[in-house]
Amino acid sequence: MGGSNSVLNFGAGPAKLPREVLLEVQGELLNYQNMGMSIMEMSHRSPEYSKINADAQKAVRELMNVPDNYRVLFIQGGGTGAFAAVAMNLLNRTGSADYLVTGTWSRKAAKEARKYGNVKLVFPEPELGTIPDQSTWTFDPEASYVYYCANETVDGVEFGFIPETHDVPLIADMSSSIMTKEIDVKKFGVIIAGAQKNIGPAGVTVIIVRDDLLGNPMTICPSILDFTHISKENSVHNTPATFSVYVMNKVFDWIKRNGGVKEMEKQANEKSKLLYDTIDNSDGFYYCPISEECRSRMNVPFRVGFNKGNVALEAEFLDHALKYNMHQLKGHRSVGGMRASLYNAVTLEDVQALVKYMKEFQKEKAAL
Amino acid sequence: MGGSNSVLNFGAGPAKLPREVLLEVQGELLNYQNMGMSIMEMSHRSPEYSKINADAQKAVRELMNVPDNYRVLFIQGGGTGAFAAVAMNLLNRTGSADYLVTGTWSRKAAKEARKYGNVKLVFPEPELGTIPDQSTWTFDPEASYVYYCANETVDGVEFGFIPETHDVPLIADMSSSIMTKEIDVKKFGVIIAGAQKNIGPAGVTVIIVRDDLLGNPMTICPSILDFTHISKENSVHNTPATFSVYVMNKVFDWIKRNGGVKEMEKQANEKSKLLYDTIDNSDGFYYCPISEECRSRMNVPFRVGFNKGNVALEAEFLDHALKYNMHQLKGHRSVGGMRASLYNAVTLEDVQALVKYMKEFQKEKAAL
Repeated sequence: MGGSNSVLNFGAGPAKLPREVLLEVQGELLNYQNMGMSIMEMSHRSPEYSKINADAQKAVRELMNVPDNYRVLFIQGGGTGAFAAVAMNLLNRTGSADYLVTGTWSRKAAKEARKYGNVKLVFPEPELGTIPDQSTWTFDPEASYVYYCANETVDGVEFGFIPETHDVPLIADMSSSIMTKEIDVKKFGVIIAGAQKNIGPAGVTVIIVRDDLLGNPMTICPSILDFTHISKENSVHNTPATFSVYVMNKVFDWIKRNGGVKEMEKQANEKSKLLYDTIDNSDGFYYCPISEECRSRMNVPFRVGFNKGNVALEAEFLDHALKYNMHQLKGHRSVGGMRASLYNAVTLEDVQALVKYMKEFQKEKAAL
Repeated sequence: MGGSNSVLNFGAGPAKLPREVLLEVQGELLNYQNMGMSIMEMSHRSPEYSKINADAQKAVRELMNVPDNYRVLFIQGGGTGAFAAVAMNLLNRTGSADYLVTGTWSRKAAKEARKYGNVKLVFPEPELGTIPDQSTWTFDPEASYVYYCANETVDGVEFGFIPETHDVPLIADMSSSIMTKEIDVKKFGVIIAGAQKNIGPAGVTVIIVRDDLLGNPMTICPSILDFTHISKENSVHNTPATFSVYVMNKVFDWIKRNGGVKEMEKQANEKSKLLYDTIDNSDGFYYCPISEECRSRMNVPFRVGFNKGNVALEAEFLDHALKYNMHQLKGHRSVGGMRASLYNAVTLEDVQALVKYMKEFQKEKAAL
């Protein structure tokens, strides 16, 4: 039982969880609160799960300073489920929506939304690793909403600012950046976030929705994606992935104990700066294709072996990394190269170990 | 760590899991297959999870003897998600479907399907606890499919036979009866089943779908409910509730080790017979409102205190049951009284303890 503490997990999701959380979960796996049962074996309407559901909602409010006129919901179906849900809950307003496509996930969200209405792009799809200057954006004043992905997990592109949409509701996919940066929730109409990167295991998606955007779902919206219905039923409209919500709630407690979102943000800045500096100071041996102003603090894609990367060298890099117990560093199949994900549970020490290895690997290759 | 073995859990779902399974899960919670990580921390595209996904599909095929022309899928969203999915994947055929409404869950399924087309009832909604004689059923030969719920968890009504629909595809919700009875899968077009009763924790729904029913989803079908898309993507179309699938796969192994579905069926018959006999031989002190021919082997609703039940006595029954460590016996809020759920992980010994307590309680009350 237990397991090595020395493994370094840079996976993009499902991703590293705080060890303290896993130990707590393990400790009470067969005996939740001395009930003699696992939390997995209890009704979603039991007092025990009801408290978890309430506590987790409260934690989101507290950690993100969510205003009173927003509801916090938990749904199933991941980010992709939420893409459809956003459109089916909000497109009824005018039948058209504006999308900022900056990478894989926002492209998928736009594609899903096209099933339900008119989707307009705010700018033509940009070159990989860039976000077009705001002066070139074109908004439709009649849009039901404006949608963007705050951090593109696959591409390593992150918005360093919140798009200004004037009175049109702004919808953000924060699946890979939720609770890693202090944000002003009232600038958003809806925030969606799959848990499996910064705040929990897979199986639950957090939805933060402004009250006035409820009440107008399309008639074809499935109950499990209907924000209005789910809000009325307090996220137990049907059986949720109870264990996922339970673990997520423990991660929320862990974030609270560790300085809250403010501290997560500070660490995210430190961790990502260390890695980008190592890449930028490698005389081109390591290469990150993302423009500096939109480099993600969460997902750092890089090539090994100058410029576009040397595939043989990259395989060697991955292979040696495994010997140092560094896991899940391989880049997304659509991008290639490496990707180090630096979510909340990844420590500065983990990143220090990674850059130490990177420097050693570079030195070894230079000596050949 | 660990926890009492003496708790008896008769919950309707999420429900009791085999203790052996929970111990295995606990043992490897921080260190799956000596990887030094939890399975919750691994990518859904990792070799480790890919094997779990493949093994779980194979186990469903093996345990249920699924013919080659059927696909086994894992989706999120529970039974309620699958209600919408069935309609959006199959109603396109003719725009109309036939529903057998025999209780809470089939009623909900019919309601959800009405969002997507014409829903016809095969018979007027019957009195609680009965299934109308087949001679009174009216089928629409133009129906896209015929839908029924094989076991109504809330109402305690189970079909003792498979409805004959001639050439119209038969869709069954087996959420609370999957793998408790040997069935001939080829009589079905689609089988849907939330895992959290007989085969795992909440968070995953098993879909068994015949090949020829794929390929014609409605354009408004969300990707996460699109059987054709999910089949092509081998159930990793997006991040699944990986932990739920992992635990479910362990339950499949446990069923295999314990004699397979044949043995589960034998035990289900024994367990439910023991409880119904106790009720029927109580001189009316306990009362089950369900007609004998459609009594559920899985969910046994009963009243305490003659006929329609005595609410004060029922509260006392529940209270005393807790002293014997018998949990989750309270009936569904829409039905009242008691409900004992006798899923695969509930043992004959558990039911023997329950009926022993029931007899003692009755004797105690008779002596007053």
